[in-house]
Amino acid sequence: MPTRIHTLHVNFTGISSHRSYPIIIGRDLLADAGFYEDMIGDRPVVLVSNDQVGPLYASQVHQGLGEARHVTDVILPDGEAFKNIDTLDGIFTAALKDRHERRSVFMALGGGVIGDMTGFAAACFMRGVDFLQLPTTLLAQVDSSVGGKTGVNHPVGKNMIGAFHQPLAVAIDINTLETLPEREFAAGMAEIIKYGCIYDAVFFDWLINVRSQLLARDPSVLAEAIKRSCAIKAEVVAQDEREGGLRAILNFGHTFGHAIEQVEGYGAWLHGEAVAVGMLIAAKISANRGCLDASTVTELEQFLLYFGLPVAAPKDMDAAVFLRAMRTDKKVMSGQIRYIVLSALGKASIVDDISANEMTAVIG
Amino acid sequence: MPTRIHTLHVNFTGISSHRSYPIIIGRDLLADAGFYEDMIGDRPVVLVSNDQVGPLYASQVHQGLGEARHVTDVILPDGEAFKNIDTLDGIFTAALKDRHERRSVFMALGGGVIGDMTGFAAACFMRGVDFLQLPTTLLAQVDSSVGGKTGVNHPVGKNMIGAFHQPLAVAIDINTLETLPEREFAAGMAEIIKYGCIYDAVFFDWLINVRSQLLARDPSVLAEAIKRSCAIKAEVVAQDEREGGLRAILNFGHTFGHAIEQVEGYGAWLHGEAVAVGMLIAAKISANRGCLDASTVTELEQFLLYFGLPVAAPKDMDAAVFLRAMRTDKKVMSGQIRYIVLSALGKASIVDDISANEMTAVIG
Repeated sequence: MPTRIHTLHVNFTGISSHRSYPIIIGRDLLADAGFYEDMIGDRPVVLVSNDQVGPLYASQVHQGLGEARHVTDVILPDGEAFKNIDTLDGIFTAALKDRHERRSVFMALGGGVIGDMTGFAAACFMRGVDFLQLPTTLLAQVDSSVGGKTGVNHPVGKNMIGAFHQPLAVAIDINTLETLPEREFAAGMAEIIKYGCIYDAVFFDWLINVRSQLLARDPSVLAEAIKRSCAIKAEVVAQDEREGGLRAILNFGHTFGHAIEQVEGYGAWLHGEAVAVGMLIAAKISANRGCLDASTVTELEQFLLYFGLPVAAPKDMDAAVFLRAMRTDKKVMSGQIRYIVLSALGKASIVDDISANEMTAVIG
Repeated sequence: MPTRIHTLHVNFTGISSHRSYPIIIGRDLLADAGFYEDMIGDRPVVLVSNDQVGPLYASQVHQGLGEARHVTDVILPDGEAFKNIDTLDGIFTAALKDRHERRSVFMALGGGVIGDMTGFAAACFMRGVDFLQLPTTLLAQVDSSVGGKTGVNHPVGKNMIGAFHQPLAVAIDINTLETLPEREFAAGMAEIIKYGCIYDAVFFDWLINVRSQLLARDPSVLAEAIKRSCAIKAEVVAQDEREGGLRAILNFGHTFGHAIEQVEGYGAWLHGEAVAVGMLIAAKISANRGCLDASTVTELEQFLLYFGLPVAAPKDMDAAVFLRAMRTDKKVMSGQIRYIVLSALGKASIVDDISANEMTAVIG
């Protein structure tokens, strides 16, 4: 029986107001015929998943979509290593061969890689078709499925090629978290605590208090944590869809994290793991600047460790290696790297003046 | 000495009003430092051209951009056959290797293929950067450079992958028409007369009257014909950026034309040549429906022949072959092919009820 626990709305104001959309959090949503009926009527579907998630959940989605509908399954190999233009082209070929048109709806069933690629494929297919996000990892549920960033990697850098393309809706079925491997679950927790760090000190404290329920994957506590995370992301994104300013605070820990992913090779570290280390680096720099108590840094570190997340940079990466890698980040403005630090717990700010010495002090 | 003969504005209303942009028609514009200064200040440039146009005109653009600016040249092989995802990826690689960022501006120096690919590359590079259109073929000047449609072909069909991405500006330097091969010039004339057919009977008559000056490439007459063509396209596109309705009339002759290009192989026919035949087919069907005088059909046919354009479908394509090819066109809605016919000279309408018999009557 499908249960909707929370429903949020991403409300773009002004010029983008026609693209508002709901985020639904609940149980048994993947097989919820009513949801698909509401969102896409009888439109044809291109259902994109990977060889890990597809076998577990595609049949539920098919059940929800109904027998009569024209549905094309596209199963991609799992992993960030396949998030590239070649894989994207495979989605186009499958959709075209099965005669999909502009009214077809693309659906992303999987984690962030599937969501980013499917969203980008939808943005480009016949110059833009609708898509639904059905995120099955905690990370995708609280981060990549909300906000409309889509894209693929390029050998030169992560997410270099892409589009802003908002989904019709995001349906977060928390049942999918039951099968999520521990490492991926922890990676999602890293992003959840990020929202506390940058936007909501009360949420930060609450997360630390309920950490044992989170670790046990208690559904109602998880649903609450996901709801608050999505709400914060939606609030930030609605104010700054195309990352002119505020949206950059969502990159807390990411500038350092992307450097780790790039140097160690995409896929060696999970995105959330790299972000965990990146957040701790940024938090330590914030503390050294007198903006954060040392005890808060310790709380953050303990929380990350509690979920088995890494808290130290790879041994082969000193401050100089980080700096070199970060200069190729796509957010670099005219050679100036922008960092997100905390001016207080629950309050992020954007700076560009972190010195090599400050970095060496916390990285080595 | 740069001379601006006409300046038009594509004014999107409502939700898209922030994306209005100028179309400047004149002489010696490619080397006009003032134009680049106005449009892009000192921003870095990725200048995309092909191996035919680049050697002729890239040096003028470099002169206009100035020595001090960071400019990356990307020279692609010429032709529709290279309008694909692989070539697109080459643009990304070149731009990334040369460390371009979000503030870099892509510039398309060439015909429709270069414009479409460069615009699409700009739409996707780091999720969207600005671009300028510097069209050097008559076809691109009056058609593809205006309106924001960008994309690449897929083996399954033309322009299947792409984006709507409006340029910062379009600079039409009519000097470039002096070196344009005859066949390509004629292909552009086909699109120009299309605007008369679908939107402006007075313009149609004027074009027929000045055909000898057009054939002689008289600059002031050409500038006038380009201006009126762009104005009509801009008017239509401004009302319907994403082809919900009105914009479809610009496809007069194109549904049949695309079928020819697809069946004969991309590049065998020039786009404008295929459209010429397509327009004549559509005009004949319109005449058989009693909407157009037979004499107007003859005038159109004579005009096309005057410029050396084809007026008959390829021998291997009968009505059945057209129908089969047209069903894969991306504008097909749920299996229903939409055709543009003329309800009168200067007035187009969208229909979906052309019978196989009507088609056989004019194609064979």
